[in-house]
Amino acid sequence: MIDQKQLFKTIETALAEDMGTGDITTMSTVPDDKTVSGSFIAKADGILCGVDIAAAVFSYIDSDVHFKNFFSDGDAVKYGDVIAAIKGRAFSVLTGERLALNFLQRLSGIATKTHEAVQKIEGFAVRIIDTRKTTPGLRIYEKYAVRTGGGYNHRFTLSDGVLIKDNHISAAGSITNAVRRARDYVPHTLKIEVETETLEQVKEALESGADIIMLDNMPAGMMKEAVQIINKKALVEASGNMDEKDLREVAATGVDFISIGALTNAVRPMDISLKFK
Amino acid sequence: MIDQKQLFKTIETALAEDMGTGDITTMSTVPDDKTVSGSFIAKADGILCGVDIAAAVFSYIDSDVHFKNFFSDGDAVKYGDVIAAIKGRAFSVLTGERLALNFLQRLSGIATKTHEAVQKIEGFAVRIIDTRKTTPGLRIYEKYAVRTGGGYNHRFTLSDGVLIKDNHISAAGSITNAVRRARDYVPHTLKIEVETETLEQVKEALESGADIIMLDNMPAGMMKEAVQIINKKALVEASGNMDEKDLREVAATGVDFISIGALTNAVRPMDISLKFK
Amino acid sequence: MIDQKQLFKTIETALAEDMGTGDITTMSTVPDDKTVSGSFIAKADGILCGVDIAAAVFSYIDSDVHFKNFFSDGDAVKYGDVIAAIKGRAFSVLTGERLALNFLQRLSGIATKTHEAVQKIEGFAVRIIDTRKTTPGLRIYEKYAVRTGGGYNHRFTLSDGVLIKDNHISAAGSITNAVRRARDYVPHTLKIEVETETLEQVKEALESGADIIMLDNMPAGMMKEAVQIINKKALVEASGNMDEKDLREVAATGVDFISIGALTNAVRPMDISLKFK
Amino acid sequence: MIDQKQLFKTIETALAEDMGTGDITTMSTVPDDKTVSGSFIAKADGILCGVDIAAAVFSYIDSDVHFKNFFSDGDAVKYGDVIAAIKGRAFSVLTGERLALNFLQRLSGIATKTHEAVQKIEGFAVRIIDTRKTTPGLRIYEKYAVRTGGGYNHRFTLSDGVLIKDNHISAAGSITNAVRRARDYVPHTLKIEVETETLEQVKEALESGADIIMLDNMPAGMMKEAVQIINKKALVEASGNMDEKDLREVAATGVDFISIGALTNAVRPMDISLKFK
Amino acid sequence: MIDQKQLFKTIETALAEDMGTGDITTMSTVPDDKTVSGSFIAKADGILCGVDIAAAVFSYIDSDVHFKNFFSDGDAVKYGDVIAAIKGRAFSVLTGERLALNFLQRLSGIATKTHEAVQKIEGFAVRIIDTRKTTPGLRIYEKYAVRTGGGYNHRFTLSDGVLIKDNHISAAGSITNAVRRARDYVPHTLKIEVETETLEQVKEALESGADIIMLDNMPAGMMKEAVQIINKKALVEASGNMDEKDLREVAATGVDFISIGALTNAVRPMDISLKFK
Amino acid sequence: MIDQKQLFKTIETALAEDMGTGDITTMSTVPDDKTVSGSFIAKADGILCGVDIAAAVFSYIDSDVHFKNFFSDGDAVKYGDVIAAIKGRAFSVLTGERLALNFLQRLSGIATKTHEAVQKIEGFAVRIIDTRKTTPGLRIYEKYAVRTGGGYNHRFTLSDGVLIKDNHISAAGSITNAVRRARDYVPHTLKIEVETETLEQVKEALESGADIIMLDNMPAGMMKEAVQIINKKALVEASGNMDEKDLREVAATGVDFISIGALTNAVRPMDISLKFK
Repeated sequence: MIDQKQLFKTIETALAEDMGTGDITTMSTVPDDKTVSGSFIAKADGILCGVDIAAAVFSYIDSDVHFKNFFSDGDAVKYGDVIAAIKGRAFSVLTGERLALNFLQRLSGIATKTHEAVQKIEGFAVRIIDTRKTTPGLRIYEKYAVRTGGGYNHRFTLSDGVLIKDNHISAAGSITNAVRRARDYVPHTLKIEVETETLEQVKEALESGADIIMLDNMPAGMMKEAVQIINKKALVEASGNMDEKDLREVAATGVDFISIGALTNAVRPMDISLKFK
Repeated sequence: MIDQKQLFKTIETALAEDMGTGDITTMSTVPDDKTVSGSFIAKADGILCGVDIAAAVFSYIDSDVHFKNFFSDGDAVKYGDVIAAIKGRAFSVLTGERLALNFLQRLSGIATKTHEAVQKIEGFAVRIIDTRKTTPGLRIYEKYAVRTGGGYNHRFTLSDGVLIKDNHISAAGSITNAVRRARDYVPHTLKIEVETETLEQVKEALESGADIIMLDNMPAGMMKEAVQIINKKALVEASGNMDEKDLREVAATGVDFISIGALTNAVRPMDISLKFK
Repeated sequence: MIDQKQLFKTIETALAEDMGTGDITTMSTVPDDKTVSGSFIAKADGILCGVDIAAAVFSYIDSDVHFKNFFSDGDAVKYGDVIAAIKGRAFSVLTGERLALNFLQRLSGIATKTHEAVQKIEGFAVRIIDTRKTTPGLRIYEKYAVRTGGGYNHRFTLSDGVLIKDNHISAAGSITNAVRRARDYVPHTLKIEVETETLEQVKEALESGADIIMLDNMPAGMMKEAVQIINKKALVEASGNMDEKDLREVAATGVDFISIGALTNAVRPMDISLKFK
Repeated sequence: MIDQKQLFKTIETALAEDMGTGDITTMSTVPDDKTVSGSFIAKADGILCGVDIAAAVFSYIDSDVHFKNFFSDGDAVKYGDVIAAIKGRAFSVLTGERLALNFLQRLSGIATKTHEAVQKIEGFAVRIIDTRKTTPGLRIYEKYAVRTGGGYNHRFTLSDGVLIKDNHISAAGSITNAVRRARDYVPHTLKIEVETETLEQVKEALESGADIIMLDNMPAGMMKEAVQIINKKALVEASGNMDEKDLREVAATGVDFISIGALTNAVRPMDISLKFK
Repeated sequence: MIDQKQLFKTIETALAEDMGTGDITTMSTVPDDKTVSGSFIAKADGILCGVDIAAAVFSYIDSDVHFKNFFSDGDAVKYGDVIAAIKGRAFSVLTGERLALNFLQRLSGIATKTHEAVQKIEGFAVRIIDTRKTTPGLRIYEKYAVRTGGGYNHRFTLSDGVLIKDNHISAAGSITNAVRRARDYVPHTLKIEVETETLEQVKEALESGADIIMLDNMPAGMMKEAVQIINKKALVEASGNMDEKDLREVAATGVDFISIGALTNAVRPMDISLKFK
Repeated sequence: MIDQKQLFKTIETALAEDMGTGDITTMSTVPDDKTVSGSFIAKADGILCGVDIAAAVFSYIDSDVHFKNFFSDGDAVKYGDVIAAIKGRAFSVLTGERLALNFLQRLSGIATKTHEAVQKIEGFAVRIIDTRKTTPGLRIYEKYAVRTGGGYNHRFTLSDGVLIKDNHISAAGSITNAVRRARDYVPHTLKIEVETETLEQVKEALESGADIIMLDNMPAGMMKEAVQIINKKALVEASGNMDEKDLREVAATGVDFISIGALTNAVRPMDISLKFK
């Protein structure tokens, strides 16, 4: 669920960047009272995401633009599918076209990529999750696209989860110290996750009472061993260039989560176009 | 050249999105007076872009962080190269790490991709240019990365160039009408570009006095013919899925510009990491 | 065409400046449910401008205020003409009165002054254009008023046109260098204009390939000569205290544009008042 | 005294309006390390105002620009006087030039016009005051210019003074009612002023306990009579097209204040230019 | 009267602080189409304040939420009274619940405390007034609550009244100097108030022409004497820990105003709860 | 640790609310070059909080103001203690005085109140925690004051913890459903807390796998029973008018946390004053 007011602010900012002092091409060539109608058409197969956002772009610009979608976020669309129809004042439709397509293409690209990862680990009780490697300014939308594609979200911000990495460990002296200090400081509603690179670290994290243990860039065999050591006493997250790994092999190690930065970080937009009649 | 004040605003917004109410992991585990030093290291070959922006991220957060770069924007770096060294308060460095890397990786990805396109058309008097298919909020930085990679910029906003597309043409009745109306309205400092899909349209655009004619999605042979028709009386821009075309073949048609949306739209970030000592 | 959302922001800012913590006179003396009706009346002859903006001021404050105009932007009005009628909650009308009048008076003043200039050069194929000498915060409205009065616009911002002045020339070394550097940098959608003060400079600008040549503060005879040298190979703009010159004499030299800073810079507001019944 | 932080915000907004996505002329033609020096020169006689603001424009843009003024706000300058010298990075100086001049010219125009009015009423114990007819967004600067020219300020906003006009009177039923209602509502730190058009109204205002009585558009004889009726029991303000009246005749009636909207409303900027060496 | 647009901004800011990236509890547990109805119930006796603000919180979030109040601001409510009923989408109601209650409880607390003070001085011609000791960001609402409780307002900001305190006096050299300097500077619509601690100062303030004299922290007997000295030639305000004084004794001294910082500074919120059916 | 940039924004907003168009009293009566020195003095015993914030207020206004503190946040101060000394331009010090005191007094009030609660439960392994009942706009500062007083923080926003209340339960159908739905949605870094009012609910919450169980408004005996049922399988939070309860009795039940809304909701500011020499 995307907050409408926040979305309108994102749209406002993005339109301002695109408009400058105004779309002079349209202002000069298109009569004020001209109306157009058109269709958003999928030019590739994939999981759709961003339809409500595209609709919001136009309703932000001009509440009289009529936007009707035939597919919803999360639906699989195929090349040639008519995603939505649009009708309204030409000036309004042309103003929103580029931004609506930018959102639709990018978010559908993320949802599609996530969906592919989710399909790969079918049958395993493991969740595909995202990271903080999102586009500045678009995090909540990109994380929404991950959920739309069947994935789950990791932290939204640095304040809604504790993730102790190597730098924190070295600064605190040890995993044990770091976990103890965090436990003494953060709200009791937050779990504490520790990033580990060796089985020694896994053991220390476990003993220190970490709620979640991240296995960073470990080979599958080592991950398997770590999972056995942890033995359900903490949640386990596999991480590190997962985009390039065999996800089924990772899933088979018994981890609870696989986090993939490339879900939001290396996205090929899904091709979608707006055709006017 | 990136405006420092505007950059600081972008950084402020991006950090706010990432911080939430604060980086509680670092606040709880890292002593206030702890300092760290580390290196930004290239994990892939490519054209570097965003070094000054990364430096600005840290200087925004804490003017006492010391950042020294060994390569500059536009330099070719290789796997293993130390791009920059950083030293300062651990809290400040950890706060800026993710954002600085996001900028460096994304912009270097764009510069590298642009550079590859530029190399392909070496020897031809043609320019590789970008489009408005940029990430909302990051346009000026992404267009800077295109220049860094050896490319050129198309319009920054809808107000600094006239680009008459099919919708404008149909709304105005004809190319001739559209060009005349634009000429009568827009500041005399702006050129008028017309998008064409057929040779008929090319001819009409030429006769209407268009300053620039865009050949959209034309086969190479047709482009060549169009260039001959235009005969230097207008500038010529080739456009349409250029990411997937043979750029040398396109360049050989004699066009002046090749615009590629994928330069900014389908970017694989260049792998760069920050290693602490 | 004025963007409604941007206009509402301008109105919001201006009202905040005027209101402080609230209009205590009206709050204390006028009953909440009191309604008023009144008329906007021209107290001088001129070209009307800002009627839609005045209407927007009231619709921003209170969507139930009824505003009906009898003249439109660009219409010639005479002393005593009833420009518009207004009816609504007294509190709302009184809140917007000063701001609506400020806009109407100032913009009509600009349109009227522009119209006078345009009339003077009737019969010549020359355009009256404005400059960047506008009131901070009001540029798009003042440039709209210039168009309403029959004039045309020069650049809106420093990013939608290249205008090489003496300082740029001296910094670049020569007109030739400056034009070459600009051509190598700016988007191909922008023309390059060069400011000249001598015929030597005119010739160099022409040879360097400038698209537009500005003749700054030249006597009419010299302008005429410049126009002949340029001989239609570039557009020609006359500039420099044009407010105090004989515009017909300037127009007769054959220039394409006459830019007048005083159109927006030295405006006498047109007298318009709001009378209640 | 102008608040520096607020001034920087005004400058930021004004520069954003002027810059668009950047001053491409200067970016492309002027080398990054080029420095310039120049002088601000008066091209007309007048009272200087805005020197500190002009200095702030440059210090906002680039703290390394050196700005030294030879005259201060309130000084009388003559044609040819060197107001200030400037030296610094060419890019910074050129970026601030137009805005600094806009402020200097406009505010000096206001100070000069105010000073002329003040000189006219020399010898009388009367103050020249301004109104709320200021440029949206610039009120505090324009009111500062009025003070610089020897005038005084009326209300800054609708919340720092009560001014009961005809509409308030008719809404409240009578002057007596309006004054009583205001007295019962507004903070005791504020005086209550009543606008009157007849001697009957003057008497009622006086009896109702108004602290200030405004005589709106009255002939001089009638004003004199009003002043005698009021007999020092309230302050008296003369108002209404005072720009076109004989100020000495008005002053001679014995009023305490003369308010002139045209001080800020119909200003001819003082000609000041920036010349580079 | 509270300005709706300003109120919506306050609500927006407060909700952003409370929401972070979203209310994940409600998003995850409450179905999108679930509706709820409930009642706001007084859990203590007091003077109600903030009902319209609470209504605005919900109308800001979701214009389809139905809010109907049975008591209005200024009404006395008793334990158990149903203040208002609410019905609408569960997500919207739960989103606004905490903020609406925060406003209602705090403002009713202020109104109740003010009302108690007002009742104490019944029969005396003295006004209870507030101070600038308000919560940052909430001043206009807290001052509204004071009026709702039967009190009056002192200055809203430092610009709508002159209050010369000991520091100003010592900086100016004497009360006489300070008053003279203020009179020569501030708009004639503002009165001048002087803070005094001794009868000597009272006399000097009176002679200097102060409009209002504040008696700061004086014993009742001394206040009485001061009132006699002033003898109606200036307004008199009693001030200084009035929360802990016998207000009837203070009122009996003949002062015109009693200002109490604790009205807004040391508030116990009135207990009000929202119960769902 | 308070983020300096965010604090400066809070200060900017608060000063704007207080200043209006400017502190005319100080502007008119205090010479520009006047300097003052003074001391912040405790007028009551308590736990100090906000010293760094007070310092930031002055450094925001004028970096040349010298502020030196003799006590730090968390220190116990006694009536008469000199908390800090200040010296600088009179205008700057007077501008920041009210705001600095507002922060110091309010935050010290919260820290003191928290400290009193913490002392009461000395010897028990229980934490005093706050709630979301904070002042709009000041949450992070008020929660900082709670920590300063020896307490701990509950959620900062609705996005950094799951707290399932009765409304969520009824909307989801049962505690079991609500917990399951939350577990399936929220990031794995967040714990899930359930509010219970009966022992039946406690049991269901425990079986549903809740990480934290809140005992809302239960008598001490019932709480004890609940703690035994839960038997360390979940964390336990006591809640509900804890301000009025016997905290030692509550602590003795074996709960892990006691949350008290009144810590931030019903604060008596600690009396601190600024005395000038």
